[in-house]
Amino acid sequence: MSMFGSVAAFETALAALPAPDRAARDAAAARQAQLTKPPGSLGQLEEIALFVAGWHGTARPRVARGRALVFAGNHGVVARGVSAFPAAVTAQMVANFAAGGAAINALAAAAGLALSVVALDLDRPTEDFTTGPAMTVDDCLAALDAGAAAIGDADLLVLGEMGIGNTTAAAALAAASFGGAGADWVGPGTGVDAAGVQRKAAIVDMALAHHAGHLDQPFEILRRVGGREIVAIAGAIVAARHARIPVLLDGFIGTAAIAPLARGNAAITGHCLAGHCSAEPGHRRLLDRLGLLPLLLLDMRLGEGSGAAVAAQIVRAALAAHDEMATFAEAGVAGG
Amino acid sequence: MSMFGSVAAFETALAALPAPDRAARDAAAARQAQLTKPPGSLGQLEEIALFVAGWHGTARPRVARGRALVFAGNHGVVARGVSAFPAAVTAQMVANFAAGGAAINALAAAAGLALSVVALDLDRPTEDFTTGPAMTVDDCLAALDAGAAAIGDADLLVLGEMGIGNTTAAAALAAASFGGAGADWVGPGTGVDAAGVQRKAAIVDMALAHHAGHLDQPFEILRRVGGREIVAIAGAIVAARHARIPVLLDGFIGTAAIAPLARGNAAITGHCLAGHCSAEPGHRRLLDRLGLLPLLLLDMRLGEGSGAAVAAQIVRAALAAHDEMATFAEAGVAGG
Repeated sequence: MSMFGSVAAFETALAALPAPDRAARDAAAARQAQLTKPPGSLGQLEEIALFVAGWHGTARPRVARGRALVFAGNHGVVARGVSAFPAAVTAQMVANFAAGGAAINALAAAAGLALSVVALDLDRPTEDFTTGPAMTVDDCLAALDAGAAAIGDADLLVLGEMGIGNTTAAAALAAASFGGAGADWVGPGTGVDAAGVQRKAAIVDMALAHHAGHLDQPFEILRRVGGREIVAIAGAIVAARHARIPVLLDGFIGTAAIAPLARGNAAITGHCLAGHCSAEPGHRRLLDRLGLLPLLLLDMRLGEGSGAAVAAQIVRAALAAHDEMATFAEAGVAGG
Repeated sequence: MSMFGSVAAFETALAALPAPDRAARDAAAARQAQLTKPPGSLGQLEEIALFVAGWHGTARPRVARGRALVFAGNHGVVARGVSAFPAAVTAQMVANFAAGGAAINALAAAAGLALSVVALDLDRPTEDFTTGPAMTVDDCLAALDAGAAAIGDADLLVLGEMGIGNTTAAAALAAASFGGAGADWVGPGTGVDAAGVQRKAAIVDMALAHHAGHLDQPFEILRRVGGREIVAIAGAIVAARHARIPVLLDGFIGTAAIAPLARGNAAITGHCLAGHCSAEPGHRRLLDRLGLLPLLLLDMRLGEGSGAAVAAQIVRAALAAHDEMATFAEAGVAGG
């Protein structure tokens, strides 16, 4: 079943975003006020509980079917020398995910998350977006649909990615969505040196110049300077919203996927939490532009959904406290 | 068995602190360099894995016996109106811990930590430290010993507290250890208003004036302006060091317990991680003075070990990645 059978269907889905359940959120807030602690003393944990209550539509939500999705894709722009690793590593890491040996395997398991890996045409990299669109319309719709199809019946989603070269695509998406030049958004990625960072900036600038005048709609931004795994994350974000599933965004690339969507409809961030702020310098700027506060600051910069998977444990802690604590009346404790 | 049978025994234990196992830490670093990720890309998770490796004395440490200890005590200074809650709440919350209804019950369970609560003479509050020492020498040694006795065979400790009025004692400990006036260290605690904060500052200043000339040794600082639950945390910290157990400090009060120890021997922080930075304003200043970087910034300000218990999940995630990930060679992935 295809959620995004046409560009118009995608645009309609992005335009008509459901709102959280206000009554459930209010009921959760009323419960928080009665729990045996000074009001507000659990800080962001209280906010998270209310956030999930609104999306799950219940005053005492729990996560029973948390899932990490890792999308993988290859990038034509890698031929221009934007990564410290060869393109073959994308497929090698997908094999590593399947064998259980990657960071996301360990971190998803530690957070009680099921893990699904979706490899998107790894033998067919996107086109070099400095000379043309990265994808055809059909390819881009297929990637959006792959993301939407992967969300299943999860009640919390961690959205991750693997794709050698994709910090360059992410920088191009950020610049196309929010302005600025390549130098404002690129960084060392997996570990290129200063010359490599300059090369990435120049490539983003070339892409922005090539596609000038065609970067004002979310779909076109994704199609022209994105990549399949990033577009799949965008599709998963929109589909999760319609299914009222809260989303934990990961690092610079995972967050860049939502940038074109927010350009089209700023409300898209409403069901999303920023799992962490990565060491990749553009990530902080991107979070600021999106109005998202990261849950964690651990200088992680791996991708794969790794930071969001760690943040899922914060969400679990928030819901455990919210659901399991006694009220002042139940515990016979004097209120403040 | 008493670890701190005399002030001299305490001073000796604080002076002769064991160092981490350098070989185990180096072996852990060598392993990190081979795991299937760009070097350093797991950020602080990598540092945490090396930290625990050093204290556990093994290249691939795991936490099998994590434990949260919550010490409770009452404070004579409460009679001066320093808290938004009545002193009776300390015992009521201890009952709530026993019944499983407090935040720390939910958060310790979510992090896979056993929970022990140690109530210290709740019917016998400390003396009002504005007019004399909070405790006798024997009382203070007993509280240190209660902390040391509680660590058991844990391999990771979360140290928490409950004690109405104890942010005032914590502010006095911070000021006595690191200088400054009451106003530099007090805050709203569980929720006093601006006038209450001023009152707390004045009370700390009265205490500093009363004990002037007697606040240059760790034991005397703890005894004169501390409280039993805070002193027990100090005892647990020193005992954990000699047992090579890594410690997660919690909020302002839990961190104030280490301030007099650091005044005596700055190396005491070596086996401690700051679980989080609380919303209580003195906590950031205290962490800066101690050279500790908090793992979490979630605006929590509850105490009970709640922030450190959430941080324990970060430690678990770090060790899971470190232990479970494949190396480049094992996974057949090309290095960077």
